[in-house]
Amino acid sequence: MNAIIYSPIGIIHTPFTDQENMPIQPTGGEGIEGTIEINPKYQSGLQDLGGFSHIILLYHLHLSRGYSLTVTPFLDTEPRGLFATRAPTRPNSIGLSVVRLLDIEKNILTISDVDISDGTPLLDIKPYVPAMQPTGNVKTGWLDSINTEQISRKRSDDRF
Amino acid sequence: MNAIIYSPIGIIHTPFTDQENMPIQPTGGEGIEGTIEINPKYQSGLQDLGGFSHIILLYHLHLSRGYSLTVTPFLDTEPRGLFATRAPTRPNSIGLSVVRLLDIEKNILTISDVDISDGTPLLDIKPYVPAMQPTGNVKTGWLDSINTEQISRKRSDDRF
Repeated sequence: MNAIIYSPIGIIHTPFTDQENMPIQPTGGEGIEGTIEINPKYQSGLQDLGGFSHIILLYHLHLSRGYSLTVTPFLDTEPRGLFATRAPTRPNSIGLSVVRLLDIEKNILTISDVDISDGTPLLDIKPYVPAMQPTGNVKTGWLDSINTEQISRKRSDDRF
Repeated sequence: MNAIIYSPIGIIHTPFTDQENMPIQPTGGEGIEGTIEINPKYQSGLQDLGGFSHIILLYHLHLSRGYSLTVTPFLDTEPRGLFATRAPTRPNSIGLSVVRLLDIEKNILTISDVDISDGTPLLDIKPYVPAMQPTGNVKTGWLDSINTEQISRKRSDDRF
């Protein structure tokens, strides 16, 4: 299978210069602000984005080095299959966060609810649309016993 | 900014061999099944995934050629900024679908609610967890007037 080559469309700036003691999901970064500096050549693609309260960020987990197919997640004490977790070390280290969009000024986005390391290369922005999410009964495997409050409270350590 | 190089972890097989007349979101592909053939070297990473009813697929939109920063989405008649749309032609053509996971047999996943072209290279699988989604009031800009039923019913054409 062939190599797939991407190039950053911008850089994410956040208060998190250390990988430890970070929120592990956007729900844990509530109120924490950051900015995204979009390469000016893509600025016209930001038109109409300001109407959305939340945006999906896809980014390259640039601090991630190597991976293991079995990991013990921050939220668990048992080892789990990597693809059943949101661990940041993956064969293709793509991070996904839904953050709050506060403002757009030219090529600079101000965002909140941030769980992303400072200096992270941004790959794509998509609008977050609840009507595109699955409905009905959702089962979450080993996470069924983990509640929203635990996800918000938990902070990262140096395990990855 | 440097090139970021990924390599597929598997291939997605679906009934969609033509880019036209496809569902434009998973909600429009309800009941349509596909399979994912994971490279056997990653098979152990699938452990524990079977407990999840829905999974997030990140994949390379391999049929996408070039992009425009202003596009008229399938759901609209007005041109919009690319990053305010889910159009498949993007600077980094990464697709995102939350699909239903029906079965895992060794390295083969059977999925449903599919809106993906046959032969698409898979980049990552993440578990879908509602408690990691944003809560409260969500605004969706130009899509505010579009309802779930329109998103489900709409089919692609040859515009991208």
